[in-house]
Parts: sequence; structure tokens; C-alpha cells
Amino acid sequence: MALMVRSWHNRFMQSAKAPPINPEDVRAAAASIAGVAHRTPVVRSRTLDQLVGAEIFLKCENLQRAGAFKFRGAYNAASRLAPERLARGLATYSSGNHGQAIALAARELGTTAVVVMPKDAPESKADAVAGYGAEVLTYDRYSEDRAAIGESLARDRGLTLIPPYEHPHVIAGQGTAALELMEDAPDLDALFVPVGGGGLIAGCATIATDLQPKIHVVGVEPEAGDDTKKSLALGRRVSVPVPRTIADGQAAETPGELTFSINQRLVEGIELVSDEQILDAMRFAFERLKLVVEPSGATALAALLAGKLDHKVRRAGVVLSGGNVDSRRFSGLVTRSR
Amino acid sequence: MALMVRSWHNRFMQSAKAPPINPEDVRAAAASIAGVAHRTPVVRSRTLDQLVGAEIFLKCENLQRAGAFKFRGAYNAASRLAPERLARGLATYSSGNHGQAIALAARELGTTAVVVMPKDAPESKADAVAGYGAEVLTYDRYSEDRAAIGESLARDRGLTLIPPYEHPHVIAGQGTAALELMEDAPDLDALFVPVGGGGLIAGCATIATDLQPKIHVVGVEPEAGDDTKKSLALGRRVSVPVPRTIADGQAAETPGELTFSINQRLVEGIELVSDEQILDAMRFAFERLKLVVEPSGATALAALLAGKLDHKVRRAGVVLSGGNVDSRRFSGLVTRSR
Repeated sequence: MALMVRSWHNRFMQSAKAPPINPEDVRAAAASIAGVAHRTPVVRSRTLDQLVGAEIFLKCENLQRAGAFKFRGAYNAASRLAPERLARGLATYSSGNHGQAIALAARELGTTAVVVMPKDAPESKADAVAGYGAEVLTYDRYSEDRAAIGESLARDRGLTLIPPYEHPHVIAGQGTAALELMEDAPDLDALFVPVGGGGLIAGCATIATDLQPKIHVVGVEPEAGDDTKKSLALGRRVSVPVPRTIADGQAAETPGELTFSINQRLVEGIELVSDEQILDAMRFAFERLKLVVEPSGATALAALLAGKLDHKVRRAGVVLSGGNVDSRRFSGLVTRSR
Repeated sequence: MALMVRSWHNRFMQSAKAPPINPEDVRAAAASIAGVAHRTPVVRSRTLDQLVGAEIFLKCENLQRAGAFKFRGAYNAASRLAPERLARGLATYSSGNHGQAIALAARELGTTAVVVMPKDAPESKADAVAGYGAEVLTYDRYSEDRAAIGESLARDRGLTLIPPYEHPHVIAGQGTAALELMEDAPDLDALFVPVGGGGLIAGCATIATDLQPKIHVVGVEPEAGDDTKKSLALGRRVSVPVPRTIADGQAAETPGELTFSINQRLVEGIELVSDEQILDAMRFAFERLKLVVEPSGATALAALLAGKLDHKVRRAGVVLSGGNVDSRRFSGLVTRSR
């Protein structure tokens, strides 16, 4: 009997529907962002390896331009627009990091952007969007539908809406983080990736399972925002109540349709972490790695530090997906009573 | 008339005394620490360049092993001991980072270490020394003489004392930070370096003025610890009262004899920064660079952000000399009222 190689190709062969993106789309995205997005460093820590009992490779997307992996997908999507469409401007909705990324991509490409943001997003994120020259519109994320607001805005003003994850070029762009990581750290047995709407892990899983068919791609969600875990268990997209978690970048209520169709085939499973475990990971990154990681950006590391790595894994990649937390919010979080 | 090239050689030619170290000693140190100390990254920031009006190259010694440049000098000095002396053990006195560095160097070289530390050093620094397996002895830095304690300890127990800066191999080791920086970022017009006892800047200035005779090497001290600035102005070593500053790594009362003899010839001048300016630099590093820098490690960056860069400088190197501040202390510092 032939050994079952669970490559990207084999996993999607079982499906009647065409995959939303191919590994080649991730490679094309890598070419389109080259020289504009940073090739972020991969950091090692002897202390971490000892604590976890494996070799860990940390992909530092907190050091990406605009402070998170989001710039990869935003720039990839925006740069593929026809010049006339690009010139009319971009629009998006975002809890923050994708908004900053679209604002920066617009500036880099010489156009304008409007970003619809929740009223309660961290102030530093709204300031950063405005700082890149974009217009900010706020909404109440407990009562209003951001997608509807974004769509009508784009229609009314003739803008191109680039959503945070439900877009093939966005997903392909995010996958370049894993492509670079696996070029720098080959032969990974596992890859841990934070999951919000699922765009980052969908892009990463697409390229990772192509490069390394036996890799285990594991998602990490905050306990309060376990929509992807529940959806994978039931085999269909379900909704959870608006998550109340410090991981503001992972406050999705339901997985994306495109992203879920990918993650259902390529993602091994989802680990959950508590806000306390996220804070422990942020403290670890601060004190041992000297790196600033925001709550959502620390969840994959938190899963490892909480002992959720399978003992058979020898080499694991981890995406530190963002670093946008201001020093005052960080201080409030890490000093609150335990 | 021949152009006066103010190379390392020419600057020391004017002196009757032999220099404590030569540029070749720094190159030899680089060979001795290779593969043991990290070659730390050089970080750029578009935001910083715009704020300062020059190209700035940040040498990230906060990412060095044991969290500061100190490991370079400690390991260089310890690794040159004869095997019998090394086996008897090391001793030192230090406000923290040099102690951690000696503790780690001892562990790496398979020997023991005793570290004499001030009672009021940040707790995380004492914990880290103990964590590397060294013995910690505390003293009161407002009433006791740490050098005397260290010397009698070394004599009584047959240990080799490696002081934090008054030692040619320590000074040469610290200079490797500038050697690496200038290999990665050639043609610097200026180099900004934090000054405590003066070992880091003495080593850096030795190699920098050899590689680039016209470079301006500028030291940065906290306002309360301006012993080197005063000493340079008077042309002799003077003492200041025990400095009360958040920059605990720069609480020297007087420059070292060896280090001052070098700095007097090679250092252009000293800039002073207030505790508030140091905190601004720590916040900038946190929020814009996503890097943790301790107060002493942020002083050179603070000088630039406070507008102390000469407008003629086009390319400047800056040493971020350490990152050993725990998250609780950081939080207390950055949230205190302004």
C-alpha cells in the first residue's frame, strides 16, 4: 500500500470545488510584495526551546511594516488593481491592523483609503490609520454590521473594497509569511498560527502543505472567540457571540467562507488559549525575547508556552502575527491582578 | 598642507603613553566571541529617519545573549584565562548586566562565578544572575565600595576578578559591537554610545576611529550621572555624587582610568539626557520598533530623539545597549505621571 502523502494537492483532490487559492498564488504574492513588505526575521530562543522541548522558529510579523502581517495581503491585493480602479481609492473595515495595512498600501501606491473601524478599537490603531493619511469612519461593533457599512461606502464613493480576509489576493499575500519562514527554517513538523477570520492561516496552510506535505498546521484562537474551532468540529461555519477578549485582532464571530473552505481541508486543529495565557506569552516575549507582541499576535506562542505542542514535534514554526499595542495599554494589561 | 586625518593612530601618536588597547585587540575579540555571542541585527526605521533627519542604524545589543552588550567583554576576558585559572572560578561586581554576562560566560566555559550586586538592583537582574547558576552577594551602593568587596572576595577564594570596564579584554570585547555595526552600515559620520564606566564607548571608539578616521564618536550620559562629561571638560577624572537616575546601568560616579585615557582622545563629546527623555525613547522603541530597551540602553536613542544630532550628520550609528527591564518595572516607568 502506497504511503498517503497529504500534500496540498492531495488534500484538495478530495474536493469537488476548486480551491480559492493555489500555492502558486502565494509565490506570485511573494514577488508582488518583494522590496515593499519587510522580509521579517526568524528569531530563536534557547530558553523557549528548553521550556517547550522542541526547536521553535518565531516569524516576527510584529516587525512587519505597519506592525502586523496584514500589510502582506493588503499590498498584494491593492497592487493588482487596474490603475484606474486603484486611482479611485480603497476602502476596508477592520479592527485595526488590516486598516493600518490598507492605509499604508494606499500611500505606497499613491492613492487614498477609507477605513471603517470599531469605536472601541485601541486608540493607537485609529491614530496609526489616520497617520498614514487615510480617512477613519467608526461604527459600533456590538450593534452594527461593518461589512454592510464598508460595502455601501465603497459603492457610494466608487472605492474598491478590500476586506480583511475574504479575498483570494489577501489570503495569498498572508501566506508569504509561511513561505519565508519555511525558506529560513526548512523541515518544520508543525506550524502554529493565530486565527481570527482565518486569512493568515489559510494562506500559510496553502503554501506550508505544498512545501512540506506532512506538516501539521495548527490554529490558535482565544477561548472567547472559538468560532473556527466550533466550525471545524461541526463541519460547517457557525457563529459565536461577539468575543470579549484582550485579543482584539481575533474577535471574529464566524469564519470567512473562503478561508473556512481552505482551513477545513488543510488545518489539523485549533488550540484555545485564555487571556491569562496570552498575557504570559506577551510577558515572555517582552522579558526574554525583548520583543513587543500584541495580544492577538501572542496567541500562537501562548499555546506553546501552555504546553499544547505535541511531544512528537521536533521543529515548529510560530507566527508572532502583530505588535500593535501601545505602551500604556501593555502596562495596564501586564500589571492587572492575576 | 596635508589634510589632518584624525585616525585612531594619529590621535594616539600625540600621547606619550601607550594606548590600553589597539584596534587589533578588538578584531581579536571578534574572533574569540564568534559563534558564542550573537551577531546582533542592525535595525532601521523610516519614522526615526524622518524625525531625526538622517539615516540611523540601530545596533540591537538588547538582543545580545544575557540581554546586553556586556556578554561581549565578559566572554572575551574569561575565554583568555589559562585553564587552571578559569577552573578556579570568576568574580565580579556589577549593577546587573555585567554580572549576568559573567554568570553566562562562566556557564558557557564550564566554570563558576560570584557576582557582587547592589541591594537595590532590579530584581530581574539578580534573578537572571542566579538563573545562570552564579552566586549572588549583595552590598549597599550608597555606603559600601563594590570594588573593594570584589577584590577581597577574589583574593580570599582564589577567583579571577573581571571588572565591568577597567580591563583591556573587556574594553576590546565591547568594541566588537561597533565593529559589527560598521561592517553592516559602512560610512557612518557619527556613532552614539551610552556611557556608564566608559568601557563600551572606549572599545567602540577604538575600532570606529580606525575604520573611519573622520567619524564623530559621541557619548550619552544621564543628566544625574555626568561624570564623564565633567571629566572630559576638566581634562581629568572627577567624581559626582551617586547618580539617582532610572538609567541604573549608568550610575557610575567616576570614569574608569583605562577607559578615560581612551575616551579623552577618541570621544568627541558627551550629550546628556533627562529621565523623561529616556522614557520617551523607551516608548518610541516599544511602539515604533517593537523592541524592549532598558533605560540605560535607550540613552543614545534618547539623545537623537531630543534633537542632539548635528545637522551635518547624514548617517549615524546608535548602540541600543541593553534590554533588561522586566515588564512590571517598564509598566511602572512608562505610566508614571509626566
